[in-house]
Amino acid sequence: MAVIFNLESERDKGGDALDRLTKMVSADLVRVNQLILQHMQSDVQLIPQLAGHIIAAGGKRLRPLLTLASARMCGYHGPRSAGLAACVEFIHTATLLHDDVVDESALRRGEASANVVWGNKASVLVGDFLFSRAFQLMVQDGSLRVLEILSGASAIIAEGEVLQLMTSNDTTTTEQAYLEVIKGKTAALFAAACEVGAVVADRPKVEEHALNTFGLNLGIAFQLIDDALDYSAKQEALGKTVGDDFREGKITLPVILAYLRGDATERAFWQRTLEKVEQDDADLRQAIQLMERHGTLKDTVARAAHYGAIARDALGIFPEGPEKRALIDVVDFCIDRGF
Amino acid sequence: MAVIFNLESERDKGGDALDRLTKMVSADLVRVNQLILQHMQSDVQLIPQLAGHIIAAGGKRLRPLLTLASARMCGYHGPRSAGLAACVEFIHTATLLHDDVVDESALRRGEASANVVWGNKASVLVGDFLFSRAFQLMVQDGSLRVLEILSGASAIIAEGEVLQLMTSNDTTTTEQAYLEVIKGKTAALFAAACEVGAVVADRPKVEEHALNTFGLNLGIAFQLIDDALDYSAKQEALGKTVGDDFREGKITLPVILAYLRGDATERAFWQRTLEKVEQDDADLRQAIQLMERHGTLKDTVARAAHYGAIARDALGIFPEGPEKRALIDVVDFCIDRGF
Repeated sequence: MAVIFNLESERDKGGDALDRLTKMVSADLVRVNQLILQHMQSDVQLIPQLAGHIIAAGGKRLRPLLTLASARMCGYHGPRSAGLAACVEFIHTATLLHDDVVDESALRRGEASANVVWGNKASVLVGDFLFSRAFQLMVQDGSLRVLEILSGASAIIAEGEVLQLMTSNDTTTTEQAYLEVIKGKTAALFAAACEVGAVVADRPKVEEHALNTFGLNLGIAFQLIDDALDYSAKQEALGKTVGDDFREGKITLPVILAYLRGDATERAFWQRTLEKVEQDDADLRQAIQLMERHGTLKDTVARAAHYGAIARDALGIFPEGPEKRALIDVVDFCIDRGF
Repeated sequence: MAVIFNLESERDKGGDALDRLTKMVSADLVRVNQLILQHMQSDVQLIPQLAGHIIAAGGKRLRPLLTLASARMCGYHGPRSAGLAACVEFIHTATLLHDDVVDESALRRGEASANVVWGNKASVLVGDFLFSRAFQLMVQDGSLRVLEILSGASAIIAEGEVLQLMTSNDTTTTEQAYLEVIKGKTAALFAAACEVGAVVADRPKVEEHALNTFGLNLGIAFQLIDDALDYSAKQEALGKTVGDDFREGKITLPVILAYLRGDATERAFWQRTLEKVEQDDADLRQAIQLMERHGTLKDTVARAAHYGAIARDALGIFPEGPEKRALIDVVDFCIDRGF
């Protein structure tokens, strides 16, 4: 999930939507970071070491930002949103640790991944620890509705990961199946992160549902744009490597569409490079050429724009204000990254 | 579900995609109609009377056409697809009968609906009869996979209907919740109708999945276009009434978006007309004006185009040929109706 990365680099260029969002909730965000540091402590030295490696190393706290801004937009100004935002970040971090083990990733945010440094077993168990911590924080918060939302999201994330495992290196994955994968691996936590904002503010169900729809569709759009950027020169211009997904044999929408639109020779190419993961240096260039020929990067962005439009409309029931504006700007920013 | 209706009138203008599809599988379709007439018989006179009223009265057999064309595209030329197409039509008809009871509809395809002529109880029970007949036909066919697909679709349809009941007259229904409703009430049976085509042809899972994705997304697109047409002058030009959904207080995407994009006065209007269903003659005109002001009909069509694009791409794995061409033309036709 390189989402955070992309955002970070874009932000470094200054003055974008996430920057404004971060400033808007900066006091809360300081509190979130304190809670994260505090609750990742343990007498078992390896836990804060490993957790610190991945948590402190970066990430723009996008999901916690969504919780904080959603709560604010719903009129909440108390301390609970920071605790729940920390929960959301713990769940996110736990899934990153487990993902890297499953994907056998060597790098995370440009540094050696935890599984490489401390081994798979430690990564799995520290992931479980962070996951448990998230639930402890939720229990402390004491809202059964929050527990229901975040435990539900966790189950969907796990389902999404299993589905991804089942479809991995399978070039015949359907777009519909892939959408289910990204609903699980990315969008469900975005949805829950936003939804709990309405819960702490004690707002009616209709606002919970609106924020769920907003987060879910923002998450889908986000992941699709990320999928497109992985093959885009734009990524390179931002100083990031192109083709990480390709080298890992990941099946994403630009590939799915290229496979569907390609001829027999092209499909053999995708099978060799992504199913068997037999690649040489020229193959990435060839992959990008095929995507351009069939317009699959452009169309992946167009698909993302559809989900972005749903997200934007979902906020319609909330009164105008700086938080709402900032959340809509995050959608625009997300889609614009792809153009 | 006025889908069939729209298609009919468009077809009457001659030479469209559905016409070509119908001609392509005309021999099979004759067999489907024979099976339908044969299996709706019963010693209980009321059953063929009532069933005949709704089945014979019209409908363009769109769902059976999808089954027949999908099977053909998968290389199947035997007799089983006609039987399964009849199953699909029975399931569809059963849901229409039950829908009319639930919605308290007085008209179906321009004629008095069965519940008005024979009463609610008879409509519910004949619906159950047709539903059971569908399962008998499936059991005769003998494929457990087909039973699995069609019983699964039936469950989703029922879930969708319950969800629709829960969201009916609720102007705050989210777009996400509405998508779940139409996946259930329309798209699930489209998906199953197409998917069984691959099963009778004994094709690999990947083709089943592709046809499921095709049917599901075609079904969503279809329903969304239908929702838009109900408020469109195009509908009037075709000699059909405009505003049926409005008069019934139905919550569809053009309304959901207009509510989300509207101000407090406009929301009060939607609540009065669709929640309380207090309407006078000028209200429909006002509703259409609000939709035009906020571009919600145009955007409903744009949303539909997204699902249409997914449906088209889903057929990518099938070799070119007349059936594939005809199925893609059905998607184009469906979307074009909305422009």
